Amino acid sequence: MRSIHSRVPATLLSCCAVATLGAAGGAPAATTAAAPEAVATQLRDAATAGHNIAYQWVSELTTRFGPRPAGSVNERQAAEWAAARFKALGFENVRIESFPVTAWVRGTDSARISAPLAQPLVVAALGESPPTPAAGLEGEVVMYPSLTALKAAAAGTLTGKIALVTRHMVRTQDGEGYSAAVDARVDGPAEAARHGAIAFMLRSVGTDSHRLPHTGTTGYTDGKVPIPAFALSPPDAEQIERLAALGESVRVHLNSSASYVHDAHSQNVIGEVRGRERPEEVVLLGAHLDSWDQGTGAVDDGTGTAIITAAAKLIRDADHRPRRTVRVVLYGSEEVAQPGPPGGAFGGHAYADHHKAELAQHVLAGESDTGADRVYQLTVPPAVSDGEFAQMALRVLTPIGILAAARPSRDFGTDVDPSVEAGVPGFALAQDASRYFDIHHTPDDTLDKVDRAQLDQNVAAWAAFVWLAADSDVDFRAHPTAPGH
Amino acid sequence: MRSIHSRVPATLLSCCAVATLGAAGGAPAATTAAAPEAVATQLRDAATAGHNIAYQWVSELTTRFGPRPAGSVNERQAAEWAAARFKALGFENVRIESFPVTAWVRGTDSARISAPLAQPLVVAALGESPPTPAAGLEGEVVMYPSLTALKAAAAGTLTGKIALVTRHMVRTQDGEGYSAAVDARVDGPAEAARHGAIAFMLRSVGTDSHRLPHTGTTGYTDGKVPIPAFALSPPDAEQIERLAALGESVRVHLNSSASYVHDAHSQNVIGEVRGRERPEEVVLLGAHLDSWDQGTGAVDDGTGTAIITAAAKLIRDADHRPRRTVRVVLYGSEEVAQPGPPGGAFGGHAYADHHKAELAQHVLAGESDTGADRVYQLTVPPAVSDGEFAQMALRVLTPIGILAAARPSRDFGTDVDPSVEAGVPGFALAQDASRYFDIHHTPDDTLDKVDRAQLDQNVAAWAAFVWLAADSDVDFRAHPTAPGH
Repeated sequence: MRSIHSRVPATLLSCCAVATLGAAGGAPAATTAAAPEAVATQLRDAATAGHNIAYQWVSELTTRFGPRPAGSVNERQAAEWAAARFKALGFENVRIESFPVTAWVRGTDSARISAPLAQPLVVAALGESPPTPAAGLEGEVVMYPSLTALKAAAAGTLTGKIALVTRHMVRTQDGEGYSAAVDARVDGPAEAARHGAIAFMLRSVGTDSHRLPHTGTTGYTDGKVPIPAFALSPPDAEQIERLAALGESVRVHLNSSASYVHDAHSQNVIGEVRGRERPEEVVLLGAHLDSWDQGTGAVDDGTGTAIITAAAKLIRDADHRPRRTVRVVLYGSEEVAQPGPPGGAFGGHAYADHHKAELAQHVLAGESDTGADRVYQLTVPPAVSDGEFAQMALRVLTPIGILAAARPSRDFGTDVDPSVEAGVPGFALAQDASRYFDIHHTPDDTLDKVDRAQLDQNVAAWAAFVWLAADSDVDFRAHPTAPGH
Repeated sequence: MRSIHSRVPATLLSCCAVATLGAAGGAPAATTAAAPEAVATQLRDAATAGHNIAYQWVSELTTRFGPRPAGSVNERQAAEWAAARFKALGFENVRIESFPVTAWVRGTDSARISAPLAQPLVVAALGESPPTPAAGLEGEVVMYPSLTALKAAAAGTLTGKIALVTRHMVRTQDGEGYSAAVDARVDGPAEAARHGAIAFMLRSVGTDSHRLPHTGTTGYTDGKVPIPAFALSPPDAEQIERLAALGESVRVHLNSSASYVHDAHSQNVIGEVRGRERPEEVVLLGAHLDSWDQGTGAVDDGTGTAIITAAAKLIRDADHRPRRTVRVVLYGSEEVAQPGPPGGAFGGHAYADHHKAELAQHVLAGESDTGADRVYQLTVPPAVSDGEFAQMALRVLTPIGILAAARPSRDFGTDVDPSVEAGVPGFALAQDASRYFDIHHTPDDTLDKVDRAQLDQNVAAWAAFVWLAADSDVDFRAHPTAPGH
């Protein structure tokens, strides 16, 4: 999860310039049961009380199918299961849309310090990384505190050696610590290769201190990852640093049997709650069904699929349909998404391509892909950030701990971003990411890490907000200001 | 660490029946700088302030030598390093005493759910466990909530199948949760084999929920572990339980290339601070230098070796020697200690055998082997629990958070227990074990888990208490009560 696209700085929007209307801050006084805010509040409270299917969904998904790497049998069977469940939940227009991918298969990977004294290391090959020779490869380790330092290394410094970037990721609530550190994983192998390295390693991009490496996709150069690349668990990176600090020259032996399956396919699973008045207008809810291969993809992104499915189910079971259609898309192959070709064939691109003609009727899109800890922040499109819609949404959401974002977002999730880039307005229900990067992309991404009460709060936020958006006729798109304004 | 011997119930001792003497509860009023209590207080405060070598010791030990399994090159090199350091620290009579062991070598181990759908499992073969056939073995999983339930299974229930004991370990401060759960690891393989099982698995004996299995030694039947035996990480055990709860029959494939080295040896490292008046009388401080192979043996038991060495170094550097000799023993091959033959050849037995003639002059023995979290409880031999010695010790130790144990102990540590069984009085500075079993015997037993402030408190407790014992002429042995008393 989480896009590896760069963020674009944006101007500040005032969150406090909202016009004060009659019902602001209090319950609406004289609405009928069918009024959008009353329904949203009902859905919120039902979800918070545990009356939603999210936990059951993520439990069964992760238990039955385990890891669901892009292009795998497990991913495909999970998609078939999800489509069958969508139908059983009463969703409409349920379909599976396939697209071709090159699947990366880890095989086995292992590593050891070979000198001064043999010690095992805990590593994981980075996604898309090529294998080592069958006998492995070995070299002296050269350490860099950051990608910047590696880039600045003198020519030839790394010839025949193994680069190690030791940068620590900073723990933040908004996940910016990840954005600040992930460059080493994405661009490190290419930079190391450019300096003559035979392999690349980095301290895992993660905030924990367990012997569990954080994998993740890495960047291509001329259509491939140039050298084998590995994430070390944080304690293993520190072990090498301490050995070097004792004056030792450290040699490491690396082995990976990674391979590629070029004729694989992945798929997006789609289901709808059709709108009662404007069914052609779509509020798009996204999450991804694939996962990394080490864990079972519980918080990345089983919970996202559970949250949006459970929210849509609550909407489906309301006394009446919302005006607009709510479309749930469980994307495939998110984890291997690349900023550019040749990695472009992933679910988010496939959806935006396949539904290009409909995107003008997509009124809003959002994604749940930062685990299952509580939502603390709402971002709405700039076009509505100062109006009654945002105010109503906050009246419903603030009681469950959600504030307005102080700044607009340009990054709504890897899956929906291609649609957003095509003009669909994005919204965000930002999740507390403080714990997320302890387990992100590690073997530890398993069901036991899901906090059920916080998962329920997520469902509450999504059900309520999506109801308000779908049962409105609000135009979320920014339009040129009319002359004279 | 931690003995797998059963505990023997003992009568309660009143901790409150101590006679009230003049200085009880307050600082001694008119002592010289050389008075034992004043020196002990000085040593305590120096250690607490960080003026001790414990962290440096455990850092260098775990960094240079990594895992130190019994009988390995790493264990031997660590012993040679420790002996050299003992000499450099000014310890006397430094020696290495070797003894033969059969070394167990893990090789590689792996496992997967093979049906209903392939999923990887995270496992660790239990110590001493025989390998599977090279192609692995596979069978249907049959679950039991406890060893008791496995024992009670009907004859033939497990023929051709794989047993799984799913019992959870309870988190406790005193480590009794481990004692209550470890029976499945020790006796499970033999019980499963008796019922026809082809392999044995258990939910790791540990209190965490990470994908890191807890290994540990298991019991022999007729001189060997009868079938391959594995610990599953807690989330993996739960995954199998949930699959079964969904109505699936779960099959597992297991592979281990474990092997044995029959002509290996291990060793104890010994050093002393010789006493000034009664050098033949020994206060024995124990910890073990070997570790399991998955982590680097930081808290099991690198910190124990660091604590007793740092305490002895503080005593060595005091203004004068204590009356009695302080002997530090870093034992080898503790982790494979077995309650009986043929596993009897471990450091604790080797020491008690080799020094049999001296044991009558061993006045007291204790061991540090439950990590590095703070000491919270002092146990002294029953012979002195009601007297001035215990009271003085508590005056020095209670200010750093240590209370008297309400009950006597019969379990002072796997290494010193053979000496205690031969009549040497035991003492215990019990460590808070609340966190210990999160990482015990896992790959996560690494330096980053050591809390330096708590480590210093341990050194303070050991230096102060051992000074008081060594600079006294107290007789810690229980003697028959004289007639008329």
